[in-house]
Amino acid sequence: MFVVMRTGAGEAEVNGVKGMILAEGLTPFENAGRDRTVIAVVGDLGKRREQLRGRLEGLAGVAQVTPISKPYKLVSREFHPENTVIKVLDATIGDGGLSVMAGPCSVESRDQLIETVDHVAARGATIIRGGAFKPRTSPYSFQGLGVEGLRYLAEARQRTGLPVITEVMEPNQVDIVAEYADILQIGTRNMQNFSLLLACGRAGRPVMLKRGFGNTIEEWLMAAEYIASAGNSQIVMCERGIRTFDTSTRNTLDLTAVPLMHHLTHLPVIVDPSHATGKRWLVKPLAIGGAAVGADGIMVEVHPRPEEALSDAEQQLDFAGFDSMMAAVSAVHAHVRDLQGDLLPPAAAGSGKA
Amino acid sequence: MFVVMRTGAGEAEVNGVKGMILAEGLTPFENAGRDRTVIAVVGDLGKRREQLRGRLEGLAGVAQVTPISKPYKLVSREFHPENTVIKVLDATIGDGGLSVMAGPCSVESRDQLIETVDHVAARGATIIRGGAFKPRTSPYSFQGLGVEGLRYLAEARQRTGLPVITEVMEPNQVDIVAEYADILQIGTRNMQNFSLLLACGRAGRPVMLKRGFGNTIEEWLMAAEYIASAGNSQIVMCERGIRTFDTSTRNTLDLTAVPLMHHLTHLPVIVDPSHATGKRWLVKPLAIGGAAVGADGIMVEVHPRPEEALSDAEQQLDFAGFDSMMAAVSAVHAHVRDLQGDLLPPAAAGSGKA
Amino acid sequence: MFVVMRTGAGEAEVNGVKGMILAEGLTPFENAGRDRTVIAVVGDLGKRREQLRGRLEGLAGVAQVTPISKPYKLVSREFHPENTVIKVLDATIGDGGLSVMAGPCSVESRDQLIETVDHVAARGATIIRGGAFKPRTSPYSFQGLGVEGLRYLAEARQRTGLPVITEVMEPNQVDIVAEYADILQIGTRNMQNFSLLLACGRAGRPVMLKRGFGNTIEEWLMAAEYIASAGNSQIVMCERGIRTFDTSTRNTLDLTAVPLMHHLTHLPVIVDPSHATGKRWLVKPLAIGGAAVGADGIMVEVHPRPEEALSDAEQQLDFAGFDSMMAAVSAVHAHVRDLQGDLLPPAAAGSGKA
Amino acid sequence: MFVVMRTGAGEAEVNGVKGMILAEGLTPFENAGRDRTVIAVVGDLGKRREQLRGRLEGLAGVAQVTPISKPYKLVSREFHPENTVIKVLDATIGDGGLSVMAGPCSVESRDQLIETVDHVAARGATIIRGGAFKPRTSPYSFQGLGVEGLRYLAEARQRTGLPVITEVMEPNQVDIVAEYADILQIGTRNMQNFSLLLACGRAGRPVMLKRGFGNTIEEWLMAAEYIASAGNSQIVMCERGIRTFDTSTRNTLDLTAVPLMHHLTHLPVIVDPSHATGKRWLVKPLAIGGAAVGADGIMVEVHPRPEEALSDAEQQLDFAGFDSMMAAVSAVHAHVRDLQGDLLPPAAAGSGKA
Repeated sequence: MFVVMRTGAGEAEVNGVKGMILAEGLTPFENAGRDRTVIAVVGDLGKRREQLRGRLEGLAGVAQVTPISKPYKLVSREFHPENTVIKVLDATIGDGGLSVMAGPCSVESRDQLIETVDHVAARGATIIRGGAFKPRTSPYSFQGLGVEGLRYLAEARQRTGLPVITEVMEPNQVDIVAEYADILQIGTRNMQNFSLLLACGRAGRPVMLKRGFGNTIEEWLMAAEYIASAGNSQIVMCERGIRTFDTSTRNTLDLTAVPLMHHLTHLPVIVDPSHATGKRWLVKPLAIGGAAVGADGIMVEVHPRPEEALSDAEQQLDFAGFDSMMAAVSAVHAHVRDLQGDLLPPAAAGSGKA
Repeated sequence: MFVVMRTGAGEAEVNGVKGMILAEGLTPFENAGRDRTVIAVVGDLGKRREQLRGRLEGLAGVAQVTPISKPYKLVSREFHPENTVIKVLDATIGDGGLSVMAGPCSVESRDQLIETVDHVAARGATIIRGGAFKPRTSPYSFQGLGVEGLRYLAEARQRTGLPVITEVMEPNQVDIVAEYADILQIGTRNMQNFSLLLACGRAGRPVMLKRGFGNTIEEWLMAAEYIASAGNSQIVMCERGIRTFDTSTRNTLDLTAVPLMHHLTHLPVIVDPSHATGKRWLVKPLAIGGAAVGADGIMVEVHPRPEEALSDAEQQLDFAGFDSMMAAVSAVHAHVRDLQGDLLPPAAAGSGKA
Repeated sequence: MFVVMRTGAGEAEVNGVKGMILAEGLTPFENAGRDRTVIAVVGDLGKRREQLRGRLEGLAGVAQVTPISKPYKLVSREFHPENTVIKVLDATIGDGGLSVMAGPCSVESRDQLIETVDHVAARGATIIRGGAFKPRTSPYSFQGLGVEGLRYLAEARQRTGLPVITEVMEPNQVDIVAEYADILQIGTRNMQNFSLLLACGRAGRPVMLKRGFGNTIEEWLMAAEYIASAGNSQIVMCERGIRTFDTSTRNTLDLTAVPLMHHLTHLPVIVDPSHATGKRWLVKPLAIGGAAVGADGIMVEVHPRPEEALSDAEQQLDFAGFDSMMAAVSAVHAHVRDLQGDLLPPAAAGSGKA
Repeated sequence: MFVVMRTGAGEAEVNGVKGMILAEGLTPFENAGRDRTVIAVVGDLGKRREQLRGRLEGLAGVAQVTPISKPYKLVSREFHPENTVIKVLDATIGDGGLSVMAGPCSVESRDQLIETVDHVAARGATIIRGGAFKPRTSPYSFQGLGVEGLRYLAEARQRTGLPVITEVMEPNQVDIVAEYADILQIGTRNMQNFSLLLACGRAGRPVMLKRGFGNTIEEWLMAAEYIASAGNSQIVMCERGIRTFDTSTRNTLDLTAVPLMHHLTHLPVIVDPSHATGKRWLVKPLAIGGAAVGADGIMVEVHPRPEEALSDAEQQLDFAGFDSMMAAVSAVHAHVRDLQGDLLPPAAAGSGKA
């Protein structure tokens, strides 16, 4: 249920609404939008729904009380019509620019990381990526450098001035990762690791949530709702391919998800063509495709010598490949940027009451 | 097995090679490329492979004899390194331009068709589409106007000067459809209707082969090989979405297929965002996405009043929607065109010996 | 719309109903059930639905007129509560027994076929299978012996007294196949070849319809509806596996489809574990599984020397494998037969008004 | 790499082998089989593989050293040819009997749980199930009673004498769940939650690992390998349906997985038809199907009044439904039990060198 306040409603009126919601044992979430404030009522309303609705409508400053048509609430465009814009250090995600998250799949050594970040930072990457804790299908594969890797990432941030994103795999790791990294990444296999979602929601850092390779759009939004319900709506959604019957690429990159998500949610959406395709030479065309369908960013893997990589050797770009991709994707993004506002269906681009 | 002729090999030498192949009960297919001629040996070689290879290598004018690494031969880049360019009336597909195939899902009446084609032709469509014979999941749904619809399509061609593409559903229809239409379309449900593939291969008209929604990239290429093996390599491949577990759109448009197909085959590849998404407002962003990943064309459904359409009402563009899509997709295509040669992996863009 | 006649309604009353339906340009399909007759009204009712319903309810002998909740009508349990039982020569499908369709994937020679059918007939197979026209992914693979293969199949029937099932791939083949074979098989790639469905519907022979590997349960029923709408409801449904992301077997056999189909339709349902798994040693356990979930039959491929087979060598049983499978599956079927009536949900087992 | 010891090799010789492995920084896992002992060498062998192999072959008591063909080692039949049999209280899983795990989806109250377990225990259930910590797609759905639920489960064990299985959702919960429950369940969404797998591997309790709905057979085995690599090979594998394009049931139950897993691994395999189908009336036929393909057990959800359930109301059996299912499945299992040894391919049933 959303309580839409009248234009010009003041703090006292908003607090009156919140007080009634809290008194019912429910949780109010407030979105102070450009034009008006909306308060989402979250919790198990059960049979009191209609009665509560009537009482809320009677409060001072309330324009209307409307049901929520979707199972996700805080991450929906209905609740929050404007795009969410996330700022980390000097980087901004979701403001119409194109974020480029680049770096090695795994942090393998200090030298490998520094060599890579120096290059990508010089060529326009806006955020540094690198895996310290690695989720591996086999218990016998390289599992990452752990905290040592986090320290190198912190050094990389220091050198480049760019924020760092890295994966966190379990609730117990959240504190240590949040100490070193600027953005917490939740991987595809953990998209429905609900304890991890909640722990990241409480960590006070932006979170990037990769789509599970076996998960629907709605489940992805519900996973983001877990994070938001824990008090954190600084969430970046990352499409990275889903499982299908076709085996010609590792997964099938679902670029339709980008405009669809922009319609359904206010959160920024980025695309990871490296993991989706698993093939180096497909990264560039699909990064361009991602920018063209309106993605807020691209995440790619870069390695000084991909053939020596300890993980995902087939899909990491070398430096020349990164440069070529950057040039192309930047040009396409600059070009389609003006078309983007137009990509939303009328209702979503409008008042958010869709 | 491919027989690669020496640069400068003459007709007599080519005929010598073909003669030996025919004498073995096999079929030679010749590709006279820019630099050199390649002759594919098609048929069941069985145990004589090595012996035949030796004999062919001994013939005059033969540079080398190489095995074919893929199960498809005539449609592979290995056989035919240059892009296939298809010319129909004044339209050209596959030359680096962007073909736009537009028109109603079904031809419902003369007026509806003429109103639509007049509009789309004026706004830059290069090919007219419209269904006369309609494959419908239910036997009780509108099945199309049949031959009457073909006549209206012929009239539309007359008015606009544009070539017409329409679907053919069974071998017996090929002659009548080929009489009225310029390009034969094979629908997604018939991608492995092998009799139809062969009949279209013999019809002397370009064929557009839609990917089966349940079919792999390799099966799609093998289906094209059926058409080519019947003597027709004027084939356009059309990606139109595949089936996945996600139900938020009708199918999942596989834009990765575009650069992948450009790598594997010399045939032009176009994208149909209307059927893939099943949602009107997603057509434009995905048409842009298709152009950005290097598609040779876009197929979209347009109806004067989509809400009255007898089929696929949810996905057809109205005229304003088409105009907006055209403007955006043309601009993006012009922009990415220069990037396209670069989208292929080195080997495919090179000598075709990948 | 179904018109349910009163118990004891006579021919004149039934004809009165049919007459009114015909006069509206619609088609009546009659099911004279054990207790009462039901007449399905098929065609585009459009806006006259309510008005026609009222008029039909006013006719003599009519108990009630009910809407049809499913898109398929003639093949639904709602229309035809009793199981359809198909008799071909001395074989019966759908009467609670277990049909066993066995024979080689392809008819490769007279000797190979005769050797196989002599064996399987002696061990309890009830129907002979064998491919004369083979749908092959590659145009260069063995395409079957064609009419020569049909003649051998006819000889096999002569020797064994068992009916023969073989695949028909295009409308033009229906007559010749129907001349030699007792049951027409429509393959997985042709499940939505609507011209072929209609041609088989008019051929006067029972039809076995394999599920498309990329098709839903509802599409499968709609394909059967095409056959039924052409006047033929002697249809056997065959589950043969669907495409999923898992590559450990060729396809994923959907045994849930068996009880689900028994709920939704009155047509018999059989299971093909050979094509689903693609692995010989998995045929027996899944044939047992098929019998256990209530299948009306099993289709398996048998070859005297599977390792020499011209198609599907990996999945064909040898004679010993067939014997072992037969013993197990017969025992399990005899055992679960009594449980089968119980497998349907209450409504479907009851009056058919579900 | 496996080190196969000679028949009759003694402890000293086994210790000699283990010592050399440990000295290399690798981990030895020993399987003392009926006939002979096998020691798996686990860890990153890198370039010393051949050299180490030679040295191990030279040790006293070593019959041969063989490479491992599969990426999973400890859970493979190659390492451990005999079936793993798990004993918990008086229950046994994997010995040829049919385990029946039954109880409510969620523990909703003491009364609901006790009423249910009293019934299912009286009718032959061998293990009590019930969710205390519930993984829910929505953060606003009922999340389970938590520790209070665990206490009721402990009381249920006390009353019935049956072991209790319940889900654990994060590493931090492992200790508290292991305190109350006899078997730790890892849910479908956590199949690749590697931290949880390792924590469960160290907990000293049998673990049931549900297959991820988006995961392959091989990934499932690799997830089990994580648990085994942490020292615990008391693992039950549970097939519960995978995601496909078909929406007629919640997921597609992959019964082929049962014989396939019995071929690839020594671990017991059970089937959960409740979650796979999501429909109450399909539970019984598929439980029968599971028993028929050789499953070692069945897990079903039972509720005194399913229509009042706080989760999964559509799929829980009522008591009468459970009784009917039990009667059928027990009868079928007794019948097919003799066929089971026969379900494995020759190699797997043999020496384990497959």
